[in-house]
Amino acid sequence: MKGFAMLSIGNTGWIEKERPACGYLDAIVKPLAVAPCSSDVHTVWEGALGDRHDMILGHEAVGEVVEVGSLVKDFKPGDKVIVPAITPDWGSLESQGGFAMHSGGMLAGWKFSNFKDGVFAEFFHVNEADANLALMPAGMDVAEACMLADMVPTGFHGVELADIKFGDDVCIIGIGPVGLMGVAGAALRGASNLYAVGSRPTCIEAAKAYGATEIVNYRKGGIVEQIMDLTKGKGVDKVVIAGGTSEKTFGQALAILKPGGRIGNVNYLGSGENVLIPRLDWGCGMGHKIIAGGLMPGGRLRMEKLTSLVTSGRLDLSRLLTHKFNGFDHMEESLLLMKDKPKDLIKPVVII
Amino acid sequence: MKGFAMLSIGNTGWIEKERPACGYLDAIVKPLAVAPCSSDVHTVWEGALGDRHDMILGHEAVGEVVEVGSLVKDFKPGDKVIVPAITPDWGSLESQGGFAMHSGGMLAGWKFSNFKDGVFAEFFHVNEADANLALMPAGMDVAEACMLADMVPTGFHGVELADIKFGDDVCIIGIGPVGLMGVAGAALRGASNLYAVGSRPTCIEAAKAYGATEIVNYRKGGIVEQIMDLTKGKGVDKVVIAGGTSEKTFGQALAILKPGGRIGNVNYLGSGENVLIPRLDWGCGMGHKIIAGGLMPGGRLRMEKLTSLVTSGRLDLSRLLTHKFNGFDHMEESLLLMKDKPKDLIKPVVII
Amino acid sequence: MKGFAMLSIGNTGWIEKERPACGYLDAIVKPLAVAPCSSDVHTVWEGALGDRHDMILGHEAVGEVVEVGSLVKDFKPGDKVIVPAITPDWGSLESQGGFAMHSGGMLAGWKFSNFKDGVFAEFFHVNEADANLALMPAGMDVAEACMLADMVPTGFHGVELADIKFGDDVCIIGIGPVGLMGVAGAALRGASNLYAVGSRPTCIEAAKAYGATEIVNYRKGGIVEQIMDLTKGKGVDKVVIAGGTSEKTFGQALAILKPGGRIGNVNYLGSGENVLIPRLDWGCGMGHKIIAGGLMPGGRLRMEKLTSLVTSGRLDLSRLLTHKFNGFDHMEESLLLMKDKPKDLIKPVVII
Amino acid sequence: MKGFAMLSIGNTGWIEKERPACGYLDAIVKPLAVAPCSSDVHTVWEGALGDRHDMILGHEAVGEVVEVGSLVKDFKPGDKVIVPAITPDWGSLESQGGFAMHSGGMLAGWKFSNFKDGVFAEFFHVNEADANLALMPAGMDVAEACMLADMVPTGFHGVELADIKFGDDVCIIGIGPVGLMGVAGAALRGASNLYAVGSRPTCIEAAKAYGATEIVNYRKGGIVEQIMDLTKGKGVDKVVIAGGTSEKTFGQALAILKPGGRIGNVNYLGSGENVLIPRLDWGCGMGHKIIAGGLMPGGRLRMEKLTSLVTSGRLDLSRLLTHKFNGFDHMEESLLLMKDKPKDLIKPVVII
Repeated sequence: MKGFAMLSIGNTGWIEKERPACGYLDAIVKPLAVAPCSSDVHTVWEGALGDRHDMILGHEAVGEVVEVGSLVKDFKPGDKVIVPAITPDWGSLESQGGFAMHSGGMLAGWKFSNFKDGVFAEFFHVNEADANLALMPAGMDVAEACMLADMVPTGFHGVELADIKFGDDVCIIGIGPVGLMGVAGAALRGASNLYAVGSRPTCIEAAKAYGATEIVNYRKGGIVEQIMDLTKGKGVDKVVIAGGTSEKTFGQALAILKPGGRIGNVNYLGSGENVLIPRLDWGCGMGHKIIAGGLMPGGRLRMEKLTSLVTSGRLDLSRLLTHKFNGFDHMEESLLLMKDKPKDLIKPVVII
Repeated sequence: MKGFAMLSIGNTGWIEKERPACGYLDAIVKPLAVAPCSSDVHTVWEGALGDRHDMILGHEAVGEVVEVGSLVKDFKPGDKVIVPAITPDWGSLESQGGFAMHSGGMLAGWKFSNFKDGVFAEFFHVNEADANLALMPAGMDVAEACMLADMVPTGFHGVELADIKFGDDVCIIGIGPVGLMGVAGAALRGASNLYAVGSRPTCIEAAKAYGATEIVNYRKGGIVEQIMDLTKGKGVDKVVIAGGTSEKTFGQALAILKPGGRIGNVNYLGSGENVLIPRLDWGCGMGHKIIAGGLMPGGRLRMEKLTSLVTSGRLDLSRLLTHKFNGFDHMEESLLLMKDKPKDLIKPVVII
Repeated sequence: MKGFAMLSIGNTGWIEKERPACGYLDAIVKPLAVAPCSSDVHTVWEGALGDRHDMILGHEAVGEVVEVGSLVKDFKPGDKVIVPAITPDWGSLESQGGFAMHSGGMLAGWKFSNFKDGVFAEFFHVNEADANLALMPAGMDVAEACMLADMVPTGFHGVELADIKFGDDVCIIGIGPVGLMGVAGAALRGASNLYAVGSRPTCIEAAKAYGATEIVNYRKGGIVEQIMDLTKGKGVDKVVIAGGTSEKTFGQALAILKPGGRIGNVNYLGSGENVLIPRLDWGCGMGHKIIAGGLMPGGRLRMEKLTSLVTSGRLDLSRLLTHKFNGFDHMEESLLLMKDKPKDLIKPVVII
Repeated sequence: MKGFAMLSIGNTGWIEKERPACGYLDAIVKPLAVAPCSSDVHTVWEGALGDRHDMILGHEAVGEVVEVGSLVKDFKPGDKVIVPAITPDWGSLESQGGFAMHSGGMLAGWKFSNFKDGVFAEFFHVNEADANLALMPAGMDVAEACMLADMVPTGFHGVELADIKFGDDVCIIGIGPVGLMGVAGAALRGASNLYAVGSRPTCIEAAKAYGATEIVNYRKGGIVEQIMDLTKGKGVDKVVIAGGTSEKTFGQALAILKPGGRIGNVNYLGSGENVLIPRLDWGCGMGHKIIAGGLMPGGRLRMEKLTSLVTSGRLDLSRLLTHKFNGFDHMEESLLLMKDKPKDLIKPVVII
């Protein structure tokens, strides 16, 4: 079969591989729609995962089941499914402890385009199919459904990590597709004033549509100053981090955070030796400003729950999709869009 | 001063009382808008609190501060304020333990028209003014603001007690004004499918506007059967109880609740010796169906947080207000509306 | 193979069955020690699970692995293992949601002597061996290890359900082996005053050894009166229920519970149509007295964690074991002990 | 009255001041026993709070009430009381939100020897006496009781921040008096293996007595290497930080922490611009290694709860007290002990 792969750091291209074998608990899926992710960009051009050779890229997909293992009960060939980016081993100790995304080791629930071939191929392999696939509701747009694989669960998990409560004032740093889902999730979780930090007009417009009450453009002044100003010196109750850097962003978040607040980070920190936590703004370690960060929870239940937010009309995913392509041939083009981030981009998707 | 009071069980009327004295930490407030509550009805006509003589009724009000004690720092005469129905003693052991609504004993954070004169008077007394009043935002409608005293915090607390999470399927039993705020709160907290149980057309219409995805009319069949049918036998993740009886409602809630679910009760149970929990539907005590019920949290922070949901555009309170009166003279009429519950009633308010 | 079975309601006896087959993920285990449980008694003589024919009894065991499926990675024949009473399907939706004990339906993580043959046999089957077995530490006494299958996790889960915090005053109702583990667990979780309700001298002595500060003997007066007296009218912060009835015990628990308190029930309620919750002591549904009850969490991680409490010297299980038998022949005798509960019994075990 | 004060950075001495005035809600207390704290040392010799002139030092005391304000109900002159180091304003917004230690601003619940005169004086002032004092149980040793003001609540809060659960393997970094209370608290909260990091023999002996199962001496090798070795490469579930530096300690904690773990910091970080969080050991921000740090909760309820751990026999404080002095004259000597930390010191106390 054909797959679009990372050949080595900095190089991508089409390769031929054997179609993956299907274990007793597993499924083989043929993609219907896939989307490239910033982490594919980090993987290829920054070597974030180290050197990889001929690894098929991609971890955002919806598809059609073509084969299932003999122990699979709930899925059969022909089923149209949403495939989460994170597909845990559900019996692992980490999963039993509530952290399935780290099954087998920190971050090891993330398999596609990390430990094994990803979804940018004619076929891909899903472990523990009953536990890791979710039926795509009839009538759901495949491109929108594809956003449920990673963008929605990652953005929404930032909101969970920040533990947003009714009436909280919240700052979301970063309004790419994950940050926008952080905005939508915060609004859906009962936040009041939502300060969204970003600069690109397309993203700003979407942020407002998803529930941001104020936009803080970092090109127009310091984030901290602007937010302290907007909040009359009070700061915010919670911060969701979906962009920025190891060195600077957490310090900004702490400077605007009230004591007793929480930071929920879902930005994959790709560089910097240390994340810097300014001692004084952190209350000399005594300020009850909790710093949490984590990979999105994957698996079937999570997919079903988030999907139901779309089918029940709570969440409109169409706004994320600025670029739609048809056919495998556009895989590289779509990936390069994520790399180059043109002004009008939020998220591209390739329909197959 | 004049006040509209419970004279004895079953009797109400206007009485004359001394204007209350203002302690060091307290405030005296003149009402701008007040609303009668079902619990006023229980108090007067069912004797739910026992016999009371010449106790001024009412615990839902916004008003204007006319006097403050010498230790009050943040409020002054002339300030327009929202007054929560629950006004805790914040230094009490219960408050320190996180249950301020029970400061001084179970339910004892509820003072107005319970332990002391209520708000249906020319003036009323607020203990610990700095901790129990919230400024009414400029431009907010006084009738709508009045819904923040009890309806919003009670309905929203049901949602908190049920611990609703992203994508949960939820049933709200009862769609009077508190239940409607349960619906609004559940939608604002990330519920997906919302099954609202009720029958009056005015309430049904409001429930849909506040986010109910299905209406279950108990006049058209059993609640349990209808919901199990709608959910294809799966039941719901969480239940908010805002109506019904001690004998029947919890059993219905348990029958539709998945293991691991929660019931959040905010219905004041006025009669029945026991609340009945069907053993088998409760999993013989082993089903992890948690039963929680509690009085709304009061105090200033809560009022400010809920108020910010209105000012940030997340919550529209106008739909609750079906009957508006002008002037103290309409107090009795408005209370009788709550007693008689005509078809077109959700909530009356008296503007003064 | 031979197994000691429930033949029908009220009848037990030895039967012959095929040795169970081993699936890809499973193990076949030969018991080294087993213990009968009160629930075996309920099953046989009260028909608590309905009529069952020729179902092998028992769900508390340690054993030696004799066979594993081809997908099992962490266990091999010859391994000595602790087998939890609850062996979930870890990929199920309930498990993903944090309630593995209800995988496949309420209580359905409980399989042994419920849905399938139990452990009172020459061999028994364990589903998902990697996820449901735990290595028995070298040198651990097999009889004591057998208490980790059900008694420890059930008693300790009562403490978790009650959410005991530093310095809480706690009442434990029932001091059979589960209640005693509730006492030990409460002390290990930071409770201060521990009021243990029971009457048998052997159990009382053990309760004191496990950390009870006061014994409340229900034969010497009402539980409620005694505890309110001992607490100078204040009541307790939390209650763990490990004994009593559907009709009476929850009412007693609520009467002594402070607002904001929690009940953690781990008593399998075998009779009564309804669990009775006295309306007034429950604060008319408004008292924040949370009622929680649930089956013990099973699986490997839980077993490893609880086992480590024994190996690290925090928990001494020897006190539970009042009756030790050697050999399969004593199975019936040990079961009848649980039925008849002689004065000097806490828990019997049969070493094979 | 006489008080032992910080005269300026680096200088201490006795001064004369007016006896403080007693507000309506307050109390004036005469100390019976006081203890110096490392933070007094930071304040004076490191200028941690900035320059202060003639500020009376000390925030750990038990005493006798000599005067109460007219609104105080539960205390009267002659009462012997435990005074928490943190005395919040209970009506503040922060207190209502569950973070009373930050009432009025981050860390501002800490008043003694920070914003106002401390307890090393003939008399000192306590705000909101009913909410901030706790009766000292009859017969309790005043020196031991004095440990309840800061050492116990701070160490135990580290355990709470780390959210220790049954069977967790835990590392406590630092075994001065706070760290030792971290050890005791972790054991009392259900930890299994407790790895205590320290080097002084007196502290090591106490750590073992309080429940440490292994001592990790940083003079004998790297902390990380030793703990990874002891845990066979698995690391620990939780870490409590009660010592170390901004630059190094959090990195060590993260390196030994499993994904899904938590750090609970109660070490006042007195220097360093940034707390350093190594990006890779933090899972690139995705590892669910939560970093929490906070000031001890103060107030009456907390004091009563922790005191009950002593009176119920769960906690023995005598081991902390290595140096007892009699009389005010020894104040300076005792403070210098904290500064110089001789080998045999855990904690000094001055009985008056």
